[in-house]
Amino acid sequence: MDALISQVRQGQHRAIARLITRIENSATAAEQAVIALYADTGKAHVVGITGSPGSGKSTLVNALAKAFRRLGRTVSIIAVDPSSPFTGGAVLGDRVRMRDLSGDKGIFIRSMASRGKLGGLSQATSAAAKVMDAAGFDVILIETVGAGQAEVDIASTAHTTLVIEAPGMGDDIQSIKAGILEIADILVVNKADRPGASRAKRALEAMLQLGHATRVRHHGVMMSSGAPAAETAVSDWQVPVLETVSTEEVGIEELAAAIVNHRIYLKESGDWFEREKSRSRQEIEQLLQLRLMDRLRTTVPENNHDRLVAAVAAREMDPYTAAAELFDQMSSTIRESEI
Amino acid sequence: MDALISQVRQGQHRAIARLITRIENSATAAEQAVIALYADTGKAHVVGITGSPGSGKSTLVNALAKAFRRLGRTVSIIAVDPSSPFTGGAVLGDRVRMRDLSGDKGIFIRSMASRGKLGGLSQATSAAAKVMDAAGFDVILIETVGAGQAEVDIASTAHTTLVIEAPGMGDDIQSIKAGILEIADILVVNKADRPGASRAKRALEAMLQLGHATRVRHHGVMMSSGAPAAETAVSDWQVPVLETVSTEEVGIEELAAAIVNHRIYLKESGDWFEREKSRSRQEIEQLLQLRLMDRLRTTVPENNHDRLVAAVAAREMDPYTAAAELFDQMSSTIRESEI
Repeated sequence: MDALISQVRQGQHRAIARLITRIENSATAAEQAVIALYADTGKAHVVGITGSPGSGKSTLVNALAKAFRRLGRTVSIIAVDPSSPFTGGAVLGDRVRMRDLSGDKGIFIRSMASRGKLGGLSQATSAAAKVMDAAGFDVILIETVGAGQAEVDIASTAHTTLVIEAPGMGDDIQSIKAGILEIADILVVNKADRPGASRAKRALEAMLQLGHATRVRHHGVMMSSGAPAAETAVSDWQVPVLETVSTEEVGIEELAAAIVNHRIYLKESGDWFEREKSRSRQEIEQLLQLRLMDRLRTTVPENNHDRLVAAVAAREMDPYTAAAELFDQMSSTIRESEI
Repeated sequence: MDALISQVRQGQHRAIARLITRIENSATAAEQAVIALYADTGKAHVVGITGSPGSGKSTLVNALAKAFRRLGRTVSIIAVDPSSPFTGGAVLGDRVRMRDLSGDKGIFIRSMASRGKLGGLSQATSAAAKVMDAAGFDVILIETVGAGQAEVDIASTAHTTLVIEAPGMGDDIQSIKAGILEIADILVVNKADRPGASRAKRALEAMLQLGHATRVRHHGVMMSSGAPAAETAVSDWQVPVLETVSTEEVGIEELAAAIVNHRIYLKESGDWFEREKSRSRQEIEQLLQLRLMDRLRTTVPENNHDRLVAAVAAREMDPYTAAAELFDQMSSTIRESEI
């Protein structure tokens, strides 16, 4: 592990890939890697990219990576793919990507697939981003599918969050209800050569306008239920709505510039460190929860736990009472233990 | 509260609506309602409906509700809407729905919006479903947007999960990577009068075939990281792929029949109780986590917690060490407290 860690610090691609594979396969490896590399992190600009299937995210991310390379920045890409074990989607997506971007030492690409365990994905992704940060990449692009909690969690790892829309998906009122607009620092209408693009752009701008008067920035804080209100701040950042055609690389330079501008804004306003604090709070609490659940498994006998589950399933006991009973058992075991 | 609870037991719509509003606004109200009503639950068939924006889910859910009414069942609908505070999507969606289904005492409709707090939505939804169950509805349709963890969590509340696709969304490999196929008991190709419908159906069938040979059923168990492997079972249920045109009410009777068949399958195979156990285990663990995080807030002084967060944000301490320190502080406070 130590040799691998020092090769990662030197930016060796093969070592980065091997370490991330270990992280995917073992929570202990993730813990060791993060502890060893954490002091080397904090330099990269982490950009989260999210949006509906069909918005052309992957092509956009590739084009964006090339634009950052032209600006002289090194780039790593994490494609988070809660894919089904059927489809092999991650592997396929990877090959398409690799062909397009291969041969450039300043780019590193990695898919993270859930392999049936959606729960651990967000932790593994966060650890992989730290590995890339410690390896010295300037920009880390984290691409996620969908609009659910997992995506929101992953986006909350980012300094800058892009939400990608495409025209024609906005026929449906649901497409503007996805709840991810709140986390957008930059909105992108991709496939802007299609009919309805300027209508989609205007609709997004109108929604931003509508929200701006009353809205309080939720970024970071909304993810962490325990975060005190003091960390909520109304942002001065004006969310831009940009048009791109990623297949033709139209509008990509402007998008890269907006991302760089957002980084400057964060640094100058002090929001950069506020976001680091929100992210840290959330991460510590998640790790604490994992530790507490581990403690549950070591202190409460399994048949005891199973008995409570069966009683709740049979409606003999309500779930709150069962949770309280588990809590009491854990507490009394902790009380009886040596310091 | 007691009067409200007994009116809910009698199935009074106004009382149900008021109780759910209280649940949305207060975790304490949710706890009281679930404890009071839990013994009356367990009779309803809970059906989760998920799929991408643009798949026509809402119209399909309305048509399905009418089909169940024709079969003599009472129906309640929960439209889970992680909507932005900008859009008022929930309210708008509600009005469209209400106009279509109003005037039938055997139907109850409720939107649940996140209002900026994605975290509590799944708990509130689960509590609302229990209220409807205790109120005596035969079928509870829970409709969710998207394909993220929140949706998976909500779907895991269900006995039967429908995944809705629409032709034309399958141009993109991402639309089949959404990771929700694993949780589907029934697949639906809606908008089947559009070009590409039979191709979409064949693609889904091929994916099911591909997965079936090796795949282990993840339902329920995949959501609960702590569930023992013993609860994983390979299912004999053959996931059907059905075509519907919800706007024309085509294929809806067949879909309702497939849902009823799945219920019969679950009851006869014993999977019904297995799913109840998975759901109960997950619910107990979530409530336990909430209780533990509450305990964190009452035992660890806030400035202590804030100091750790700032140290992690500044890279002076790694998040694992910070979590371990919080855990030790909690443990020692519990140790010092009276039994």
